Amino acid sequence: MSKVKEEVQNEVSAQQRLEQHLRTVAHLGHVEIGVTKFEDSLWFYTEVLGLVLTEKEEGRAYLRAWQDFDHYTLVLQESETSEVNRMSWRVATEESLDLFEKYLKDSNIDFQRIESGQKKALGDAIHFKSPSGLPIQLYWKKELFETDDPKLQSQLPSHPSKYNVKGVSPRRFDHVNIMVDDVKAEQEWWTDFLGIHHRYYIQNEEDTRLGSWLSRTNIAHEIAFMRNANQNGAKFHHLAYFLDSPDELIRAANIMAENGIEIEWGPGKHGTSGAQFIYVFEPSGHRVELWTGGFLIFSPDWKAIEWTSDVGELGLEMWGSKPPKSYFTYGVDIGE
Amino acid sequence: MSKVKEEVQNEVSAQQRLEQHLRTVAHLGHVEIGVTKFEDSLWFYTEVLGLVLTEKEEGRAYLRAWQDFDHYTLVLQESETSEVNRMSWRVATEESLDLFEKYLKDSNIDFQRIESGQKKALGDAIHFKSPSGLPIQLYWKKELFETDDPKLQSQLPSHPSKYNVKGVSPRRFDHVNIMVDDVKAEQEWWTDFLGIHHRYYIQNEEDTRLGSWLSRTNIAHEIAFMRNANQNGAKFHHLAYFLDSPDELIRAANIMAENGIEIEWGPGKHGTSGAQFIYVFEPSGHRVELWTGGFLIFSPDWKAIEWTSDVGELGLEMWGSKPPKSYFTYGVDIGE
Amino acid sequence: MSKVKEEVQNEVSAQQRLEQHLRTVAHLGHVEIGVTKFEDSLWFYTEVLGLVLTEKEEGRAYLRAWQDFDHYTLVLQESETSEVNRMSWRVATEESLDLFEKYLKDSNIDFQRIESGQKKALGDAIHFKSPSGLPIQLYWKKELFETDDPKLQSQLPSHPSKYNVKGVSPRRFDHVNIMVDDVKAEQEWWTDFLGIHHRYYIQNEEDTRLGSWLSRTNIAHEIAFMRNANQNGAKFHHLAYFLDSPDELIRAANIMAENGIEIEWGPGKHGTSGAQFIYVFEPSGHRVELWTGGFLIFSPDWKAIEWTSDVGELGLEMWGSKPPKSYFTYGVDIGE
Amino acid sequence: MSKVKEEVQNEVSAQQRLEQHLRTVAHLGHVEIGVTKFEDSLWFYTEVLGLVLTEKEEGRAYLRAWQDFDHYTLVLQESETSEVNRMSWRVATEESLDLFEKYLKDSNIDFQRIESGQKKALGDAIHFKSPSGLPIQLYWKKELFETDDPKLQSQLPSHPSKYNVKGVSPRRFDHVNIMVDDVKAEQEWWTDFLGIHHRYYIQNEEDTRLGSWLSRTNIAHEIAFMRNANQNGAKFHHLAYFLDSPDELIRAANIMAENGIEIEWGPGKHGTSGAQFIYVFEPSGHRVELWTGGFLIFSPDWKAIEWTSDVGELGLEMWGSKPPKSYFTYGVDIGE
Repeated sequence: MSKVKEEVQNEVSAQQRLEQHLRTVAHLGHVEIGVTKFEDSLWFYTEVLGLVLTEKEEGRAYLRAWQDFDHYTLVLQESETSEVNRMSWRVATEESLDLFEKYLKDSNIDFQRIESGQKKALGDAIHFKSPSGLPIQLYWKKELFETDDPKLQSQLPSHPSKYNVKGVSPRRFDHVNIMVDDVKAEQEWWTDFLGIHHRYYIQNEEDTRLGSWLSRTNIAHEIAFMRNANQNGAKFHHLAYFLDSPDELIRAANIMAENGIEIEWGPGKHGTSGAQFIYVFEPSGHRVELWTGGFLIFSPDWKAIEWTSDVGELGLEMWGSKPPKSYFTYGVDIGE
Repeated sequence: MSKVKEEVQNEVSAQQRLEQHLRTVAHLGHVEIGVTKFEDSLWFYTEVLGLVLTEKEEGRAYLRAWQDFDHYTLVLQESETSEVNRMSWRVATEESLDLFEKYLKDSNIDFQRIESGQKKALGDAIHFKSPSGLPIQLYWKKELFETDDPKLQSQLPSHPSKYNVKGVSPRRFDHVNIMVDDVKAEQEWWTDFLGIHHRYYIQNEEDTRLGSWLSRTNIAHEIAFMRNANQNGAKFHHLAYFLDSPDELIRAANIMAENGIEIEWGPGKHGTSGAQFIYVFEPSGHRVELWTGGFLIFSPDWKAIEWTSDVGELGLEMWGSKPPKSYFTYGVDIGE
Repeated sequence: MSKVKEEVQNEVSAQQRLEQHLRTVAHLGHVEIGVTKFEDSLWFYTEVLGLVLTEKEEGRAYLRAWQDFDHYTLVLQESETSEVNRMSWRVATEESLDLFEKYLKDSNIDFQRIESGQKKALGDAIHFKSPSGLPIQLYWKKELFETDDPKLQSQLPSHPSKYNVKGVSPRRFDHVNIMVDDVKAEQEWWTDFLGIHHRYYIQNEEDTRLGSWLSRTNIAHEIAFMRNANQNGAKFHHLAYFLDSPDELIRAANIMAENGIEIEWGPGKHGTSGAQFIYVFEPSGHRVELWTGGFLIFSPDWKAIEWTSDVGELGLEMWGSKPPKSYFTYGVDIGE
Repeated sequence: MSKVKEEVQNEVSAQQRLEQHLRTVAHLGHVEIGVTKFEDSLWFYTEVLGLVLTEKEEGRAYLRAWQDFDHYTLVLQESETSEVNRMSWRVATEESLDLFEKYLKDSNIDFQRIESGQKKALGDAIHFKSPSGLPIQLYWKKELFETDDPKLQSQLPSHPSKYNVKGVSPRRFDHVNIMVDDVKAEQEWWTDFLGIHHRYYIQNEEDTRLGSWLSRTNIAHEIAFMRNANQNGAKFHHLAYFLDSPDELIRAANIMAENGIEIEWGPGKHGTSGAQFIYVFEPSGHRVELWTGGFLIFSPDWKAIEWTSDVGELGLEMWGSKPPKSYFTYGVDIGE
């Protein structure tokens, strides 16, 4: 091979490796959910949970936690069925979106390009589905939250809006969790296709994968897949917001109990992540997790931790409480 | 230009961009410090702070927090002066170390290659200095902590060792802070050369940089530079371990007060990071910060937050307490 | 002496001892304060502090913490000067009020009997002053808080109203603190006359009493006297509400910082009581303490703990922070 | 009736009323338990729970929390069966012990006078049994804890010993709980005979008393009676130590989980008291509660709160978790 040819060859590989590096998500951005009881759910998210309402339109509300820097991290849409409509990820670089588009074409995966401005505060986006049919949105640009309202504006430049003195008032959006029939297959696709690292997983006695937790960032997970005990397809299990301390979680549980919001499970502590949790049902039937603590993963060559069946229950809850049956069977639908 | 030439050209650029992507650190790994009162400091770090002693040699001790996955995150070395000897960073990929070596050569910066095995539990490493003379170590491989000791071994695979029931018992190593004469210049070098993002900074009334905080990971900072009020060169300001909650920080303050360890400042809350803190002096004179909370930064195009002089004090401490003068003047030496 | 006479003698002494047992207060009930900025202070107490507004009249507001069982524990009165108008104590038994009246007569202390119904939700009361001129109210009956408002009513019988999801939301009223010129004399009178036990005190190097803390109940103190550094008579130093945890205190400090309420001192920890604190100034200039923790005193023959001058500063604050000068000099007036 | 006779009559009544006032307990002092696995239980109480070992004799250990002012609050005795041997109450005044002795005689209740010095650090005491056969000890004098050991001695006069940096490290002893067949009868006896106020109670659908909680001090309860679901006589349900915050309770749960101590129930929150809890089994089979928070009762005419059957479960646990069956059936024996 001529020297020039060889160099070209090497460089092709460099180009490919570079594209691979750039074709990845950066972090989970927000989630869009359909709610059957729009006003009741809005009451829950603003008055009980204490999220900040960014904007409200006919049948749609944009919400964020007080230190979410983005314009919104949760979208409520009035709907005939409670469902998840879109899980939205920011990509790693400006080039990434086009690289993903090319990759989707090469992979023969259906997708739709959404022009900037079609969705609130959002630049160009790509919509497509995972093997289990989960609706994914990738985007590069989303407006940051800014306000002139003196009731919201903080004197601290690090606070996009003031700490909310009302309700639970979590610090930030954290993660989503979906029940699927085949956890292993779904996890591998998200890791391979989107670059989201596999962090830890639980196997049962038959060595079937019960759950896998993944993140692109340093947090323990941004998305999790749990085995649907009913094996009837994908269901949206929950969305989660992050609190600053176990004590705030206790306060959250008190607030739920006082305001007639059912706590399905918790306070408990996941052995896997080391995070403390409660799970509640909001008025439209979505499961919401409030979660605090947990470890960060800094290692660039992290090996996913296996929780074998003998410690699997501790992985789920390390203090000894057992999840109710609904935890393994109930989820809302995956929307179109 | 011929097509082949053009492709080569493009590919050279691809190769360069790829190298740039790979030539970066992944995260802060550990810090090596010299201590004049070895046994007293060891008592502090194990009995009061509650770190786990990994290994002890003649005049050297290797320590880690209970959930530090690495073999150690702090090295104590008996020394004639209390000083910092090495700030050690893991690089992003296996190739990164060689890429850094090449880059150091190209940049005419003196460095030393350390062979695997010369340093405890460490693979190949490179030693060199920042513009202010800060001793840097880069490495790819460090052994993980593993134990057969039933007193240390946890049944939880996520716990490299049991939660330590003794002393403050932080969760993990967090960051280092150095006083330098020219904060801006030092920050820019660390960002450009090592790929560590600039997260937030404080300017004074004369628009001089008073402090800059940087991280490669999603935590608010892994390294900070503060202006040395004495302008007499670089000094090591402090090292920090992370606690899980404000309540644990209060417990830490109680433990310090009961055991004759002086709290220099705190409990307070940095407006910049949103983290709560106490600063204490260990027996050999090192300042140690215990720190909890703070926000994570997920944005891939984060713009460093400026704290102008009118809110600079809130940036330092948002509840209203003022740091003692020593906070701006005292640090230990930078070792060879 | 005849046997009958002797029995009578003994029984007189029994009657006297019995009266002494019954002539005592049970606990601190509430405090009435004058505020120059009525609406601003009301905003502070309801929106920032998160007290529940029981009733509002022209220029008067009745407030309580969510688990204060009484109709109110704080009364705000629009006033030309910010001052304390009345510190109000419940007596131990139904007979106690008459026994105190008799005792005041015997002691030649001016007093005023207030008929039931003259004061909001209150039965008969007696008004008089301590040696330093502090306005005391004794009462036996005060209405409990009851509500039909579904926004306030809790399903838990132990909650007179729901945990308030807004603002700091302390659990209950705790104590008052007054600066006087002669701490020792004032303390002894309150102990002898009202039966409020002396719990701990601080002496200075000249063995002058700097502070004394007293309680009738098991909490560390319900009333404290601190030496007025200006020696210009009695001043009302602060009133305090109780929080459930150090973590809630941190949350309180955050809320103050975000809402422009100056924190004079803290978070800190009193060595004397073991309670954590912050002191803030509300809009009309009253100092309000938020306080959590501290020890309970069960011993029926408790000997007041002496804090000699060598540990006096630790008594004030055991983590090492120093109170600002204002802490020893500033207080509002004692009203008529 | 002659005037003298009348006066005598009145005074007889004064004497009776005075005696009634003096014939009461002051507070729960300590509990003595038999343990089948003495060394294992001692490991639990000192290393895991973090109590301070005051003294150890052949087969006997005296323990206290770091801020228990008394010489001990828990006595472990090596025994063939795990059981409770003595629940020990301090009486209100020096005279009280003789008044109780007289009252026991008048009431034809068997009792035994124990001379000062027969029991560790204790003055004169009286032993007798409640209607359900619970072994009661009354005493006036118990030595306070004092130490010269620099590892234990605090510089803070309010700390009888240093905050213990090891294990859970509760602040103080709190309460005991006993299962009996007839809760109502037992509660009434304790209130009438010993002067311990009834604070709150739960009724079932048949209006049978399921539980009653009582205290002489301002804490929510010092002793509780729960209905034995097996109706096979009195059993000792648990003893409890008090923690400072919900966060410390979470830490306690972590410590239990890491050290192989089974958590029977919790973390949960009693609606009745508002206290958060975990229940664990120590190696000899005693149930130990760690508990934090809860409200104080100051009212001198407190009316016991009734929890009717429709809210009884919330009274037990207000966040929604259900106690395991063992909670209503398992207890250790009542010793001789």
